[in-house]
Amino acid sequence: MTKTIQFLPDNVTVEVCEGENLLAAAANAGVYVPAYCGGDGVCGKCKVRITEGDAPSADSHMLKKDELADGWRLACKIAVTSDMVVELPLEKGRDGKIHKRKPKTTRSISARSLEAIIGKWDVDPPVEKRFLKLPPPTMDDNISDLARLLRGIKKGCFDCKEPTYDHPELLQELSGLLRENDWEITVILLRGKRQREPDRIIAIEPGNTTDKLYGLAVDIGTTTVGGLLMDLNSGKVMAEASAYNAQIAYGEDVIARMIYSQRPGGLATLQQKVVYTINSIIEQVCKEMIISPSDISYIMAAGNTVMSHLLLGIDPKYVRESPYVPTCSQFPLTRAADLGVYAHPSVRLFLYPAVASYVGGDIVAGVHACQMHKSDQVTLFIDIGTNGEIVVGNQDWMICSACSAGPAFEGGGIKFGMRASAGAIENFHISPDTYDPMIVTVERTQPRGICGSGLISIVAELLEAGVVDQQGKFNRRIEHPRLRESVDGYEYVLVWERDTQVGQDIVITEVDIDNLIRAKGAMYAGYQTLLESVGLTFTDLDRVILAGNFGAYIDLERAISIGLLPDVDRDKFYYLGNASLLGAQISLDDTKRFRERAEVSGLITNMELAENSEFMNYYMASLFLPHTDMSLFPTVQEKLPIGD
Amino acid sequence: MTKTIQFLPDNVTVEVCEGENLLAAAANAGVYVPAYCGGDGVCGKCKVRITEGDAPSADSHMLKKDELADGWRLACKIAVTSDMVVELPLEKGRDGKIHKRKPKTTRSISARSLEAIIGKWDVDPPVEKRFLKLPPPTMDDNISDLARLLRGIKKGCFDCKEPTYDHPELLQELSGLLRENDWEITVILLRGKRQREPDRIIAIEPGNTTDKLYGLAVDIGTTTVGGLLMDLNSGKVMAEASAYNAQIAYGEDVIARMIYSQRPGGLATLQQKVVYTINSIIEQVCKEMIISPSDISYIMAAGNTVMSHLLLGIDPKYVRESPYVPTCSQFPLTRAADLGVYAHPSVRLFLYPAVASYVGGDIVAGVHACQMHKSDQVTLFIDIGTNGEIVVGNQDWMICSACSAGPAFEGGGIKFGMRASAGAIENFHISPDTYDPMIVTVERTQPRGICGSGLISIVAELLEAGVVDQQGKFNRRIEHPRLRESVDGYEYVLVWERDTQVGQDIVITEVDIDNLIRAKGAMYAGYQTLLESVGLTFTDLDRVILAGNFGAYIDLERAISIGLLPDVDRDKFYYLGNASLLGAQISLDDTKRFRERAEVSGLITNMELAENSEFMNYYMASLFLPHTDMSLFPTVQEKLPIGD
Repeated sequence: MTKTIQFLPDNVTVEVCEGENLLAAAANAGVYVPAYCGGDGVCGKCKVRITEGDAPSADSHMLKKDELADGWRLACKIAVTSDMVVELPLEKGRDGKIHKRKPKTTRSISARSLEAIIGKWDVDPPVEKRFLKLPPPTMDDNISDLARLLRGIKKGCFDCKEPTYDHPELLQELSGLLRENDWEITVILLRGKRQREPDRIIAIEPGNTTDKLYGLAVDIGTTTVGGLLMDLNSGKVMAEASAYNAQIAYGEDVIARMIYSQRPGGLATLQQKVVYTINSIIEQVCKEMIISPSDISYIMAAGNTVMSHLLLGIDPKYVRESPYVPTCSQFPLTRAADLGVYAHPSVRLFLYPAVASYVGGDIVAGVHACQMHKSDQVTLFIDIGTNGEIVVGNQDWMICSACSAGPAFEGGGIKFGMRASAGAIENFHISPDTYDPMIVTVERTQPRGICGSGLISIVAELLEAGVVDQQGKFNRRIEHPRLRESVDGYEYVLVWERDTQVGQDIVITEVDIDNLIRAKGAMYAGYQTLLESVGLTFTDLDRVILAGNFGAYIDLERAISIGLLPDVDRDKFYYLGNASLLGAQISLDDTKRFRERAEVSGLITNMELAENSEFMNYYMASLFLPHTDMSLFPTVQEKLPIGD
Repeated sequence: MTKTIQFLPDNVTVEVCEGENLLAAAANAGVYVPAYCGGDGVCGKCKVRITEGDAPSADSHMLKKDELADGWRLACKIAVTSDMVVELPLEKGRDGKIHKRKPKTTRSISARSLEAIIGKWDVDPPVEKRFLKLPPPTMDDNISDLARLLRGIKKGCFDCKEPTYDHPELLQELSGLLRENDWEITVILLRGKRQREPDRIIAIEPGNTTDKLYGLAVDIGTTTVGGLLMDLNSGKVMAEASAYNAQIAYGEDVIARMIYSQRPGGLATLQQKVVYTINSIIEQVCKEMIISPSDISYIMAAGNTVMSHLLLGIDPKYVRESPYVPTCSQFPLTRAADLGVYAHPSVRLFLYPAVASYVGGDIVAGVHACQMHKSDQVTLFIDIGTNGEIVVGNQDWMICSACSAGPAFEGGGIKFGMRASAGAIENFHISPDTYDPMIVTVERTQPRGICGSGLISIVAELLEAGVVDQQGKFNRRIEHPRLRESVDGYEYVLVWERDTQVGQDIVITEVDIDNLIRAKGAMYAGYQTLLESVGLTFTDLDRVILAGNFGAYIDLERAISIGLLPDVDRDKFYYLGNASLLGAQISLDDTKRFRERAEVSGLITNMELAENSEFMNYYMASLFLPHTDMSLFPTVQEKLPIGD
């Protein structure tokens, strides 16, 4: 249920989901409300007056009785339960006059119908269950139990090939299984290329179990492993789960993991840890649906090249070394149980193929999910992280690359950087008049640091307010207690010590801003290099698709403001969420997509940027906010304070 | 080197291999020499006079000085080293006159050239080694290591399918292997159906190892496991080994093994024991050739249905129960290492398919070896054992059956029955005049019992001498100290206590003879039933092929005399030896034969005799020596004493 909130006097109206926090709603709407403690209710700054709608008064100790009676509340403590009209306190400018704030036009990336991007797909899974009532053997018909089973499977399919069954485990209990169940069993078959042709027997179950047919999609992220359990009869997602990749204890990113893998026993440890994580996901979804792990008929997984290598126990050593060669990019079909995954012994684990060392199966799955390879629209597909992966193309051609953006987007290399967990500043506004901040943290607890999306918000706001210039340097002419010089150089105090959990002022430094500029510059130069290599420019793009968890938290306007995303028509942007998991999902229950996933990687050409001089030139030109070539950012040009 | 021996006064000349024992040579030639102690040199009865040729006098204590000087020796102590003329002592008949013995026409089964039976085959093994020098990766050519390898393999084969590599183990060390060996490696490939098309990568080795390419053929017998190592480059057998099947401690025959398999842990124990035995064979042949087990590129095995089930850990429970259904008759392709076999992890173990529960892969391998399925000659293929397996047919049709002959041929159910090991009576003659025996034992040691071939000799000789009648009863009218009645009924003393190792007289009883009659009767009724089912008789047979270890020791004439083998032209008989191992061998180094082995089982139709009334009628008629219908045994009719 959505609720409408009208903020006065700005007269900005937004729709939010029921239960949304009012402070976060204001921040997302671009409405500035002073808020120093991140939403924890301790600074008492975010007073607003609710003139229409429900507003329980649980936060009475920060407000006087008459204020409460008059409708004043702390925005950070209000969960939206009805339509509302919210009045903000009038704010005095540096000139002492009351300002009417001009709301910022922030814009989330369209959460337009997934179907528009990934198309419709059939519920026609590559596995099927068939219930068979076999005639018991007699002296006149005493073919082997297996031959009887195969005859039953092939019945009504006259020129079918014999399905294969290359796992002795399947046979070890076949005879008992058939007899104990009066020759009534269900076979789980992997289907062949032709309609109804069985290709491979996955498992055999007693009785009729055709109503239970499950597949598991898994995204093996470096940080997080996500999975979803799908009912392959209905095509419905039945349960979802995610967990931190237990490899994280052995290194934050793929480079650290590769280094750890070279220690004695390191590779085996990493293999076991990711399997442990996958198993915890299987346990979660199975517990939720009250099924057994052996009820899952197949597993489709996608992960980057290093994660894929580690899962299979393949040494990724040479991925790190020029010329960056993985052991394999098409991964072998593996029995999940052989890897230690909780699964029926004959259940297969399919891994999305990779394109190159740094453009892995997660990206191929994403490209597959958004059906770029079947669309005539020229699409820029972006997955932002420590390694930003970029794919440009359409049904006729696709080119991809990875660019090493560094860890800034994940909080790395930033003085108060952190992951997007409780207490991370995730949204930020600055009063253009008082230069005071509005801080919103993850889970609305007192601030502990800055996560990637917060960093983009902070730098974009500081830039637009003129606190930071286009080179990323603080405007030395502004005198304000929050702007100061410390041993690390100039910095802006986001949160004073008293409002933090960390016992010190939380600041953003020029070094931090510089790191962000280099990270976004690498991404932007990547887009340019790929487009230029095929003779296109940003104006040729029909769509820009953002994938990955990070994409979910990016404020589109701000990301464009700092030059992380190209300044093209906002309607062209789509957010696809966990595209890797989505790719695995669409391969779960549609045989055609299941089969075409292997083709997708073959259609994508990899381009190495590491030693590409064109890329280096573009990169140097991108080390500016948003860019040295402002003609590439016309809408940002308009927003920036006129330079002096 | 063969040597010629002329026995006088019988004037029988035989050719024997150099080193053959003179007593055994006489026995095989059908020349009667009194011999009571089996050839151990203790009874001193087997005196012969050597008038020409070498004859060292190592046995002087049993002979007088002048006898030695005159050329007398104990035949059992002479190894033939030159051509010889041997004079036998004159023997007095019951009438006191000296008899000139009429030599028996014994006849061994033709050891005619194997090639006449199994044809020529090419040295064109289904696996090949290719040495590859791969170009190292560069920034312009940084496809994955696996893709580089596959490109190298496919080079020069333009429309080849991609070879498969479905075992992650192969990939786990690929990258290191390539780099540590300067991109020079040897791949072992299983070849596809088309010439030079690689189907599956089995293994990768450092450097150039193309000169080492080995395959292992294994016959998994219930009693003995045999193996041979073949150099697949030359097609030569490099080493052979055999060992008792270590399952033997858990039961003598397949029935006992099946019963044991039903105990808790029994199946796993039997699986481990046969693998242990196969491993001991691998160790033996590898030790002999100074290679490592991982140098073996593939393993082709054949065994009966129960042995095949047990090797794969498949419960054979229902094989024993009517309607005698095995779990499978086409066995899955298995990685040898998965079963516990010492082998490279990706090496495959192929098992010959079976036809039915009691007509296993050993028989299919035998039929394959003798190329019945490609010959226009109507062939009767016989493997005699506890279960006698019979196949009749030619290129147009083949029909098979197993008949439960009982354990008599393996010494079971016989009072002094034993396996064909040291001390087992393996050859026997009786003096038609004195009714005294000539006993030859395995390894010429003092007698301990009677093995299968000895039993056939004894009964045939007793029959032809008129000591036993056609019903298998002793002739009560003969008075002789060796013929007597004991608590077990009538019996003939083969060896007096003093000449045995067992401290008691070794006898053959009427019960023993009855057991033999039932065993041979089941076999003969089997031949008849199969032939009759396709409207043929024995006269339609072009060939009779004997397979199995037992076949090697059977004296053809005697086997016909008792009715175990049909009385057809002796030139039609062939002895194929261990046909199961031979089948595995011919599939090792010829791709065409490798591929056709699966077809052979499909061409054979199984017929169940257990509940077949036709068979029961034939069986009842066969319970006679040689048969109730003597027109089936014209040559035996001539030899038998005229009935009274």
